[in-house]
Amino acid sequence: MRYILALVLLATCLTAPPLSAQTQRGPGAPTLDETLPNGLRLVVYEDHRAPTALHMVWVKAGSMDEVNGKTGLAHVLEHMMFKGTKTLAPGEFSQRVAALGGRENAFTSREYTAYFQQVHKEALFEVMALEADRMQNLSISQEEFAKEIQVVMEERRLRTEDSPNGRANEALMAHAFMSSPVRYPVIGWMSDLESLTAQDARDWYATWYAPNNATVIVAGDVDAKAVRAEVVRLYAAWAKRELPTRRPQSEPDQLGERALVVAAPASNPFFIRAWRSPSLSAQEAVSTRNPKAREMAALAVLSSLLDSPDLGRLTIRLVQEKRLALSVSADAADLSRGPGLFMIEGTPSEGVSLLELEKNMVLEIQKIAQEGIPESELAIIRRQVRASRIFQQDSLFSRAMEAGRLITADRPLSDSADWITLLDDIRSDDVQRVAASIFRADQSTRVELRPLPLSDAPKRSASSAALRH
Amino acid sequence: MRYILALVLLATCLTAPPLSAQTQRGPGAPTLDETLPNGLRLVVYEDHRAPTALHMVWVKAGSMDEVNGKTGLAHVLEHMMFKGTKTLAPGEFSQRVAALGGRENAFTSREYTAYFQQVHKEALFEVMALEADRMQNLSISQEEFAKEIQVVMEERRLRTEDSPNGRANEALMAHAFMSSPVRYPVIGWMSDLESLTAQDARDWYATWYAPNNATVIVAGDVDAKAVRAEVVRLYAAWAKRELPTRRPQSEPDQLGERALVVAAPASNPFFIRAWRSPSLSAQEAVSTRNPKAREMAALAVLSSLLDSPDLGRLTIRLVQEKRLALSVSADAADLSRGPGLFMIEGTPSEGVSLLELEKNMVLEIQKIAQEGIPESELAIIRRQVRASRIFQQDSLFSRAMEAGRLITADRPLSDSADWITLLDDIRSDDVQRVAASIFRADQSTRVELRPLPLSDAPKRSASSAALRH
Repeated sequence: MRYILALVLLATCLTAPPLSAQTQRGPGAPTLDETLPNGLRLVVYEDHRAPTALHMVWVKAGSMDEVNGKTGLAHVLEHMMFKGTKTLAPGEFSQRVAALGGRENAFTSREYTAYFQQVHKEALFEVMALEADRMQNLSISQEEFAKEIQVVMEERRLRTEDSPNGRANEALMAHAFMSSPVRYPVIGWMSDLESLTAQDARDWYATWYAPNNATVIVAGDVDAKAVRAEVVRLYAAWAKRELPTRRPQSEPDQLGERALVVAAPASNPFFIRAWRSPSLSAQEAVSTRNPKAREMAALAVLSSLLDSPDLGRLTIRLVQEKRLALSVSADAADLSRGPGLFMIEGTPSEGVSLLELEKNMVLEIQKIAQEGIPESELAIIRRQVRASRIFQQDSLFSRAMEAGRLITADRPLSDSADWITLLDDIRSDDVQRVAASIFRADQSTRVELRPLPLSDAPKRSASSAALRH
Repeated sequence: MRYILALVLLATCLTAPPLSAQTQRGPGAPTLDETLPNGLRLVVYEDHRAPTALHMVWVKAGSMDEVNGKTGLAHVLEHMMFKGTKTLAPGEFSQRVAALGGRENAFTSREYTAYFQQVHKEALFEVMALEADRMQNLSISQEEFAKEIQVVMEERRLRTEDSPNGRANEALMAHAFMSSPVRYPVIGWMSDLESLTAQDARDWYATWYAPNNATVIVAGDVDAKAVRAEVVRLYAAWAKRELPTRRPQSEPDQLGERALVVAAPASNPFFIRAWRSPSLSAQEAVSTRNPKAREMAALAVLSSLLDSPDLGRLTIRLVQEKRLALSVSADAADLSRGPGLFMIEGTPSEGVSLLELEKNMVLEIQKIAQEGIPESELAIIRRQVRASRIFQQDSLFSRAMEAGRLITADRPLSDSADWITLLDDIRSDDVQRVAASIFRADQSTRVELRPLPLSDAPKRSASSAALRH
């Protein structure tokens, strides 16, 4: 939930006169939020402090929309989006953005695939035109696909096969869930990557890259009306398409504890333990009166209480004071389309066993469950939340990222403000209640990384370090 | 591998003059084995000892061909096959077979969906016509689908939700494999069943029920030439179709031990432990010279050594002598399209812990690894194999079942004979070698069934007991 402690965004649906409800909007609300007749959603944040513009397109299709046998496809398509269109040569997209002095990237997650460029405001319409071109006219040749799939496989080797953290997290997700597609690695299973075809990529593009499955987000020193006119012009020919039904694929109840060992070349052992945690369906509100939402917020507060860098109890007690751990962390679930986990992770100091460290970490949680949190400590967490809110409001990128994430998670933009309101309402007894109820062994999955000698690790070429996210 | 200790079948491809190679066939070989121009394979076993005929159609599509979100579909389609065609009312198929004095059923597995009828030989062509009709002209109405999916969900409740064994086995498969689709329950995840539609069933039928994905097997007091003529006539209009590419979906290496607890209402605790075991690709032969095939056969011998009813070491030592267990079993992997497991299962006597029982079971395996098996004991296993071979040759049903299973597992019918030859060649040192090598903790998955009070079990209506397999 960390990233979402961000900024106040107040959603206003502007299919009606776009600038009418000005007074109802908070300071971080979009200037424009409109869904065009072809289903394409446009969100604009005017911010005139610097002559720069950020442009993003978010497609609501990530690894959780994939099917077995073709995992990794959302991310492979992200790679192919740089490989040419009907009128653009492979690699030309990035060259053109660079020539405009822009920076750009793309990222794929369980829930979405997103593309962004940041440029001088005068170059905005040019990158918008480039993006609109590849959204509608992507060309996937057999040759380019064959080259790029090798790059993706190398990325998998680097980030998963050769990474103890990658291995452990992949195993954790694959076993914490039995049937939900959030259990798939975003990068895909290697065997699937090996058998993906250019036609699979074309099918993915034809299925999910539709205006009614995409959102254009523009932020910066721009004129919302002019941006809107340009978006209407650029995407006029992009026809609404019927999207596949997304099956609920609800995860079955967990009936007992799960424990895994992952042996991999590594310097240190570590463990991750994850507990099932509440998640909200698209129909449920982020509200102080929704018990599940309260639980989620209380868990977000708990995770900050446990591991914030200077104040976190696990950090202070176990890393700084008792020196039982080299590092510890805690992480609560985001608002998402899928089920959630609360995770703790710990790397013990030399001579300390994994179990001893874990026992101490769980003790700190139990202490919170029993004794609660002093109001002074909660107040600090609230101040941190407000500070990060102000900091993030200042960043075009964070603001746009949060909007894109909420939209592709089927959440209203108002969640952003509601989440802050909810966090402000969280009291010690809320945190005590979740700390006492969700950390049940029978709802947990534990992964233990057992180090193998590092000499067992395969060597990779240095060139493979510079891959796109 | 148990079912395959069956009979000598010698495959001969008879697309050429059908009755030419008679002298090369063994006693259990098919009279006819031919693939028709539309891809439909026909296997006939003439057997004139009784005036009866068995008719089966095997479709090579099971739960391992499903995708996430639509699991259970192969089996749902099996149900829909009894719900009417363009010319047959729902339920009429079974009424007609019953009126002919026949018995019939159908079954779905990870690898196939199969349909059979056994009738007096004079009714054979009538049931063949009925089957040919639903293979080509199935009608799936919204109404019938809506009713039948409820029946399937009730079947899932009965066989999985309310069954400790069902629960434990479902969890075992889902966690022993991370990515292979053999991890899906054949019945499907409940959430998927809830969202399946009549159109999904129609799509499945249109995709997989194609002549080039089906095999007709006829056995009994029949004339192969007449059967062939009738099959040609009945399926003349069934056009060959392009089948979807089946992705390898190879299971990643297991990097360490996995352990799960499943808590469910039950009278007794039990455990299942499964180790990854070798499997053969479609290209690999069942041969005394193939080390992987030898390992598979040695594991099949080991499983018989461990748990055969009167002679099995686990049975004798742990159930009869030491009285540590109420029941024990061991099971080696079949020849299949997917990866394999060797499993042991034990239910301890009262007062005996799961771990104590498991330790004792593993000790028996280690003893075999260290000391080998006396030739006298191996000889008994061989005699058992031969006895079951003779017994099975006598059964039309077993003979046809084995053929259908081999064909839908992408195996040649000659595997049947080759497997017997291979088993005859297994020596004590083969068994010792596998017993010493495959039972590595880091290649195992362990499920422990932890009993909850039986009063927690939901009550089901008595009517739900009479469901089709």
